[in-house]
Amino acid sequence: MSALIKEFNDYRQKMNEVILSKNNLVMKRLWNLDTNTYEDGALDKKTKEMLGLVASMVLRCDDCIKYHLGKSYELGVTTDEMYEIFAVANIVGGTIVIPHTRRAAEYWEELNAPHAE
Amino acid sequence: MSALIKEFNDYRQKMNEVILSKNNLVMKRLWNLDTNTYEDGALDKKTKEMLGLVASMVLRCDDCIKYHLGKSYELGVTTDEMYEIFAVANIVGGTIVIPHTRRAAEYWEELNAPHAE
Amino acid sequence: MSALIKEFNDYRQKMNEVILSKNNLVMKRLWNLDTNTYEDGALDKKTKEMLGLVASMVLRCDDCIKYHLGKSYELGVTTDEMYEIFAVANIVGGTIVIPHTRRAAEYWEELNAPHAE
Amino acid sequence: MSALIKEFNDYRQKMNEVILSKNNLVMKRLWNLDTNTYEDGALDKKTKEMLGLVASMVLRCDDCIKYHLGKSYELGVTTDEMYEIFAVANIVGGTIVIPHTRRAAEYWEELNAPHAE
Amino acid sequence: MSALIKEFNDYRQKMNEVILSKNNLVMKRLWNLDTNTYEDGALDKKTKEMLGLVASMVLRCDDCIKYHLGKSYELGVTTDEMYEIFAVANIVGGTIVIPHTRRAAEYWEELNAPHAE
Amino acid sequence: MSALIKEFNDYRQKMNEVILSKNNLVMKRLWNLDTNTYEDGALDKKTKEMLGLVASMVLRCDDCIKYHLGKSYELGVTTDEMYEIFAVANIVGGTIVIPHTRRAAEYWEELNAPHAE
Repeated sequence: MSALIKEFNDYRQKMNEVILSKNNLVMKRLWNLDTNTYEDGALDKKTKEMLGLVASMVLRCDDCIKYHLGKSYELGVTTDEMYEIFAVANIVGGTIVIPHTRRAAEYWEELNAPHAE
Repeated sequence: MSALIKEFNDYRQKMNEVILSKNNLVMKRLWNLDTNTYEDGALDKKTKEMLGLVASMVLRCDDCIKYHLGKSYELGVTTDEMYEIFAVANIVGGTIVIPHTRRAAEYWEELNAPHAE
Repeated sequence: MSALIKEFNDYRQKMNEVILSKNNLVMKRLWNLDTNTYEDGALDKKTKEMLGLVASMVLRCDDCIKYHLGKSYELGVTTDEMYEIFAVANIVGGTIVIPHTRRAAEYWEELNAPHAE
Repeated sequence: MSALIKEFNDYRQKMNEVILSKNNLVMKRLWNLDTNTYEDGALDKKTKEMLGLVASMVLRCDDCIKYHLGKSYELGVTTDEMYEIFAVANIVGGTIVIPHTRRAAEYWEELNAPHAE
Repeated sequence: MSALIKEFNDYRQKMNEVILSKNNLVMKRLWNLDTNTYEDGALDKKTKEMLGLVASMVLRCDDCIKYHLGKSYELGVTTDEMYEIFAVANIVGGTIVIPHTRRAAEYWEELNAPHAE
Repeated sequence: MSALIKEFNDYRQKMNEVILSKNNLVMKRLWNLDTNTYEDGALDKKTKEMLGLVASMVLRCDDCIKYHLGKSYELGVTTDEMYEIFAVANIVGGTIVIPHTRRAAEYWEELNAPHAE
């Protein structure tokens, strides 16, 4: 796993544990609900991850983008499909989405890089 | 066609004509590009419209939502699928998306209403 | 009840019923969670409604603002307190919050107007 | 003056009076500061109004847009210049700015319409 | 003081000095007004800092969040209260607020850590 | 060239090359259009860069701000003019723009620093 991916995952896990340790019920239930949102339903998981990704891109949330890029990679989204999602995000959200697209492109390259486990 | 849908379409068409009549090249080319973005590619039209819709919802643009609802209806998105898109938008974007979801739900009902031509 | 307040409440209730009738589980659970968020806890209800209001103002969601204005009125927020919330929202969010503050001020006047039941 | 312009100005003035009558010092001082921001300085008034307009457009605040359109009209911005401002706003902010551009175009037509005083 | 807190404070102070040295009157007056906004009034300081914090969270401004976390800590906001503010921000603003909540949680831990002066 | 400026330019160029190598036609055409938007027209280049800058500031896109700061520097925007743009952005967009103004001020200092080539 690349350093970029590992750093993201490690910080995310560490701080999620801190937050959950405080036992705020609303936060806990929101996070469960967040997980449920992306499960197979009338739309399949892959489509829902793409929806979550494009929403994160136009709202310009780099960490949300990384999370959905990781999930999209696991679910088999191709690079051509990914760049069409990027295109929708950039057209709807404008050129302010470009810097986030650069960071998304970098992270996508890392996810797709050949690597020893 | 319902009054709500007709009013949206008529105003949109009237003002688009005013804007295009000014011959601003950047505006014209952006609008062409906007059309191209949603054509079949690695992702099909229906998926792209759903991406455009969820992006419009989290950015809380009622007219953009109406436009993509109309296109999604034409492309056969079902009500169950639509409400899963609404769910992603509300989870990612929060409860501030709810009032826009109300107006989206109203417009979706109109699109799906049996009607004499 | 003023026409402005009645119109807001009626449309909200009507469309909430439409949305809930579709049985999307994520939407239903998010709405329950939304209700729980504003219940007494370490912070009291009134403080939480003020937090919900200022968040709605800087995010410039007129219907969300109206909802929290109604709740704040019920919980005894005074006009002096309300305008200090408006001030925080306008300083943090900038002059783009002003038009929403105008509509909030109008709704607040209606809520506080003497009226026959 | 067109009905659209008159309605905007009348509501704005009425509600500004309500807000100012509450004597919230932060609100009052912010509004004075807002006025000062657009006075001649290193940049002239016209340039500053154009800056205020493009900022209002990408933040998608219709009433703010109307206000700066009115000021820009008074300061002699031409229609060609105006549409180049629209173009910057649409490229930076994306297609979600289009519905706001339609309403801006409509208001700009009204401002430029020949009219009996 | 932790490295994270010190780095934030030092950079903030250094760049504030640069900005103020340019003698832009609007910037100076805005900053004075910003200070006044959070002083005791109809609402007390602690409530106002909580309002400023939740507004900063839904607008997803990490540095603004850090600033209000520091002030909230000084004014005695407890961890249970803080997580209820986090909950309101996450419900109103959606899951895109989560990454900012992680960074807020980290900073809050630092503020509350036992430390040699 | 300062380390800060070089780092920004290098990363930007490297990732732009990655993105363009994927041959997504919408992305390519959007980028061409972005370039055209800031060319001389009814408004001159300098004014357009200032418009792009203030739009980037209120949308709080640090990399977009850096890009337009670089262009504004090349086109001869003075420090007094720059701080009036900052003032408009902070008044329209509120105090959440301040942290971005700090980073903009730092980058502007670097651009204006005497330096050996």
